Amino acid sequence: MKVYGMPYSTCTVRVLTTLAEKDEEGYEIVPIDLQVGAHKSPEFLKLQPFGAIPVLQDGNLTLFESRAIARYVAEKFEGKGTALFGKTVEERALVNQWLEVESHSFNPLIEPLVVQLVFAPMRGKEPVESVVKDHTYKLEKLLDIYEAHLSENKYLAGDFFSLADLSHIPYAFYLINVAKKGAPFTSRKHVNAWWEDISSRPAWKKVAALALTKE
Amino acid sequence: MKVYGMPYSTCTVRVLTTLAEKDEEGYEIVPIDLQVGAHKSPEFLKLQPFGAIPVLQDGNLTLFESRAIARYVAEKFEGKGTALFGKTVEERALVNQWLEVESHSFNPLIEPLVVQLVFAPMRGKEPVESVVKDHTYKLEKLLDIYEAHLSENKYLAGDFFSLADLSHIPYAFYLINVAKKGAPFTSRKHVNAWWEDISSRPAWKKVAALALTKE
Repeated sequence: MKVYGMPYSTCTVRVLTTLAEKDEEGYEIVPIDLQVGAHKSPEFLKLQPFGAIPVLQDGNLTLFESRAIARYVAEKFEGKGTALFGKTVEERALVNQWLEVESHSFNPLIEPLVVQLVFAPMRGKEPVESVVKDHTYKLEKLLDIYEAHLSENKYLAGDFFSLADLSHIPYAFYLINVAKKGAPFTSRKHVNAWWEDISSRPAWKKVAALALTKE
Repeated sequence: MKVYGMPYSTCTVRVLTTLAEKDEEGYEIVPIDLQVGAHKSPEFLKLQPFGAIPVLQDGNLTLFESRAIARYVAEKFEGKGTALFGKTVEERALVNQWLEVESHSFNPLIEPLVVQLVFAPMRGKEPVESVVKDHTYKLEKLLDIYEAHLSENKYLAGDFFSLADLSHIPYAFYLINVAKKGAPFTSRKHVNAWWEDISSRPAWKKVAALALTKE
């Protein structure tokens, strides 16, 4: 398998973490350097017409969209490593539910925060304060709902770590560990315990080391 | 099964269409009237802490997020009606890929258009022209990529109708058939043929009649 992407890209990291949870090392990373516009080259656009990373190639299959690739990896290596969709049809449904919450409610709030607080400064730009304030407020409100849910459930989909938890890690890591603006997480008892748990998994530690060293 | 929602809600309609493609009629609709704020009532928030419709109840399972419910229905009734994830692991992966494109690229463009052109006028408001212009332009650019893809594939994930195609229908229907602003679709040969095909399926026709009569 080939993963086209960059280890500092949150969406690439989502895929690499899924592979790591599956103990799967049979892949190589093909760097697509966003900073020189490699994702908009005619050659890359043949693989990914929207010009975004990551892309997975596995035999004749070319696949994009990080959450679709993560699902494919989780299903292809179903019997190996962590069971990322749980064990029953109902558990799988709840994993899917929280994957949608991550994608539609969590990501649109945390992504602009990480852009403002991590990626803008890297490029010598000042964060736009109104964006930071507004998105922090909304993230706090969202995490209030997570707090209530996690007070009754160890993980998002129940008592097992799943792809839904995993999918939250890349952006949360940048906000908490790189920007050091993790208060919306760390000030909430059950959200904090959940973050401590999911971010201390060996698969994530391995990928985080890669993401940081290649930044 | 119980589906909490409203037949005019695009997300409720996504679930009803999935049930219809599965020839599944063993459910009742429990109306949650957004116009009187029923989705924010304490009772409903116990089912759905984010205060949104639809919600599916199936035995002990309570499930929200329309795309997660649609997946559950497609998987629970796998052997019945239309095979909405195709037949192979690779086909399933491509259905997931295009579901992500629908959810991350298509929906954020067409939803504000339908809000401005259909739901605002219903409430006696004028559409905000700058929003309409900007989102129409971006939707045209996105559908250029669909056009190229659909010139080589009958449906999004290949030569079979899938949950990815289905998931586009509710908002496209409002833009094309209710607002009568379907030019981004109808002016593109292959996108238009795809729309004619997926919107003439018996399952959709049945749900569309329900959506329109209960508006």
